[in-house]
Amino acid sequence: MHVRSNETRTMEDIKKYMQQVGQQARTASRAMAMADTNAKNRALENIAAAILADSAKLIAENAKDVAKAKIEELDAASIDRLTLTEKTVKSMAEGLLQIAALPDPIGEISDMKYRPSGIQVGKMRVPLGVIGIIYESRPNVTADAAGLCLKSGNAAILRGGSEAIHSNQAIAACVHQGLREAGLPETAVQVVSTTDRAAVGELITMKEYVDVIVPRGGKSLIARISEEAKVPVIKHLDGICHVYIDDEADLEKAIRIADNAKTHRYGVCNAMETLLVHKSVAAQVLPDLCRIYLDKGVELRGDDAARAIIPQMNTATEEDWRTEYLAPILSVRVVSDLDEAIAHINTYSSQHTDSIVTENYTKAMRFLREVDSSSVMVNASTRFADGFEYGLGAEIGISTDKIHARGPVGLEGLTSQKYIVLGNGQVRI
Amino acid sequence: MHVRSNETRTMEDIKKYMQQVGQQARTASRAMAMADTNAKNRALENIAAAILADSAKLIAENAKDVAKAKIEELDAASIDRLTLTEKTVKSMAEGLLQIAALPDPIGEISDMKYRPSGIQVGKMRVPLGVIGIIYESRPNVTADAAGLCLKSGNAAILRGGSEAIHSNQAIAACVHQGLREAGLPETAVQVVSTTDRAAVGELITMKEYVDVIVPRGGKSLIARISEEAKVPVIKHLDGICHVYIDDEADLEKAIRIADNAKTHRYGVCNAMETLLVHKSVAAQVLPDLCRIYLDKGVELRGDDAARAIIPQMNTATEEDWRTEYLAPILSVRVVSDLDEAIAHINTYSSQHTDSIVTENYTKAMRFLREVDSSSVMVNASTRFADGFEYGLGAEIGISTDKIHARGPVGLEGLTSQKYIVLGNGQVRI
Repeated sequence: MHVRSNETRTMEDIKKYMQQVGQQARTASRAMAMADTNAKNRALENIAAAILADSAKLIAENAKDVAKAKIEELDAASIDRLTLTEKTVKSMAEGLLQIAALPDPIGEISDMKYRPSGIQVGKMRVPLGVIGIIYESRPNVTADAAGLCLKSGNAAILRGGSEAIHSNQAIAACVHQGLREAGLPETAVQVVSTTDRAAVGELITMKEYVDVIVPRGGKSLIARISEEAKVPVIKHLDGICHVYIDDEADLEKAIRIADNAKTHRYGVCNAMETLLVHKSVAAQVLPDLCRIYLDKGVELRGDDAARAIIPQMNTATEEDWRTEYLAPILSVRVVSDLDEAIAHINTYSSQHTDSIVTENYTKAMRFLREVDSSSVMVNASTRFADGFEYGLGAEIGISTDKIHARGPVGLEGLTSQKYIVLGNGQVRI
Repeated sequence: MHVRSNETRTMEDIKKYMQQVGQQARTASRAMAMADTNAKNRALENIAAAILADSAKLIAENAKDVAKAKIEELDAASIDRLTLTEKTVKSMAEGLLQIAALPDPIGEISDMKYRPSGIQVGKMRVPLGVIGIIYESRPNVTADAAGLCLKSGNAAILRGGSEAIHSNQAIAACVHQGLREAGLPETAVQVVSTTDRAAVGELITMKEYVDVIVPRGGKSLIARISEEAKVPVIKHLDGICHVYIDDEADLEKAIRIADNAKTHRYGVCNAMETLLVHKSVAAQVLPDLCRIYLDKGVELRGDDAARAIIPQMNTATEEDWRTEYLAPILSVRVVSDLDEAIAHINTYSSQHTDSIVTENYTKAMRFLREVDSSSVMVNASTRFADGFEYGLGAEIGISTDKIHARGPVGLEGLTSQKYIVLGNGQVRI
């Protein structure tokens, strides 16, 4: 069924279309689960080659999306995320080759142990089945997500933003070519061709065809999807990350880490949004650290104790502790002890990434154990919370959920483990 | 807030009551996550002791439930599941001591690896938080579920069936006594005091207070909960399990396994419901095997090819392939080859447990890889699909989901892993 994106369609049409997409994905997922490592890697290499070969075409299709975005007066940051250049096209292709180079997680057998009954029990890693990915703006997600799902033996249904529809369809053509050339079903990766929102509603409720939904995008998109989904969702919510400078911190490390966590990049989910400082070292560490921030143009918002030390700070409100700025703004709070720091984090953190700077072993261990976030760090910048930095190779997102996958989600997060039992005629007695 | 179960209440009251239960559970979950192994084990031992000491009282409270069930003419099997005896009370206490003897999963650190940046990255096992368990009939689930949640550092909200309310409240009193004596919050295990169905509706949608729902019970209960839940659900659906006797099977093993898988116990989810036999060995193996079944009073329902060999078989319909009998009934189908066997299983199996009997290596490996079920076996009875048999120690259920936990769910299934990063002042460059 071919339906053009600009066609007027009824809800009934969209439902039918999505059901067909779902059925095709389910069928393709069976072939993908059986596909051998070579076929999957060949497909990834073919897709990379097709993307490089079609570079000019991709950029031309992308230009249509960018032109429309400018007419519709999208903000500069969104247009920037949307725009494909020769460099970003090249890095899409490189990303796929990096995924090809990763070990195949599927079929991995682990923990085989003999039991008193004589059976041997362990686990085998298998794909999840069909993964629905809903995302905004960045067209490179189309290639990344297709590559990760493909390598992990899953079928993917990709639903990008309407603002990137031409770019995404052009990338999809490269993906299909690569799959076809490797002898794998083209329907293993389907890019939803309608920009109608009803398609999302259908995708997240087709339990018979979709095993998990991965939303990538703004907080409101993800909140809406979690609210309405009938299919399990691996959520990547906001990143309100903290650095806590303990009274037993090495202050040189503290300044380096707190600087990097805030200013290395502003618009990323693993950037620090709130700095917590122990009251005994606040007067020592804040002047040097804040000079760095102010020199880099970071707006500071502090509590009374922090403002008493750094008069250039604005006043932080309750709202500040709950805000992911994604901007050169930092809230600063002076705390009395580790307990107060942990309590602040467990209250306001989005359970993404939080770091302590301390030389004290017991406090480091307590922080690791007691902070309930997907990544908890000692003496390291929150900016390390990332699939590449963790050695996963690539990530589909960073889960702030506790179920199934927590933290950066790489190939393994897109798989499941089944039990396998090897016997020799054993029966239960 | 104390509300009696027989009180008439408005929806508003129930919502308020459940919200309070949820808040208390969330608060208790923080204390439980920090509780050390000794405190948790002491609580388990105390609860076991309280259950043994209160044995007569538990049986007396249970008698109220049983009397009511008889008046309401519940079927014999349900009354049997509901009834507590001195023996079942003793085994409840023993179950708790077994959980105390298991290693504590919480705080376990694994996979710590140095990355090129100099940071060391790995995982720490942590509790999920608050677990809601919804179950029917068997009051022993109250003790089992409380024990598993407690040991895995979670808070539990237990919602048993209305038919077992007196039994469950009496067991809850023992649980609270045990927690109190160990210095842990009593609210770590709360048994919902109202039998109103609206309480379930509230429990499965309180995302702010509940991290996961584990339903244990009939198919319709679980289907309804999955449909309405806003909280992630670890499902344990029906067990339509298969044994496939290959043409290269050791027929002596085949008969032993197929007999055991069907007749060891009938009313359990890991019993075989459909036997698949390769056409080349059907005439050899079916006569001896079916004589055993018929001697044990098992009704046989076969396809035409099977009935040509065993005339005492009734005719199997399409419906039979989709049915979990939980009774002395078996459907039998003759297949042409391994592909047909796998296709049948992947079409009709409930993805619980399926087993192949074969001496052929390649077919065994293909079956393991291609059958998409939570437990896949070679030359072993499906009856082994069980937490104790697998060495998990105890199980909260058997998940037929792919997300988070698949197969028997023990203590680990009630936990999550967060990333931990140990640095020495590293920053992202």
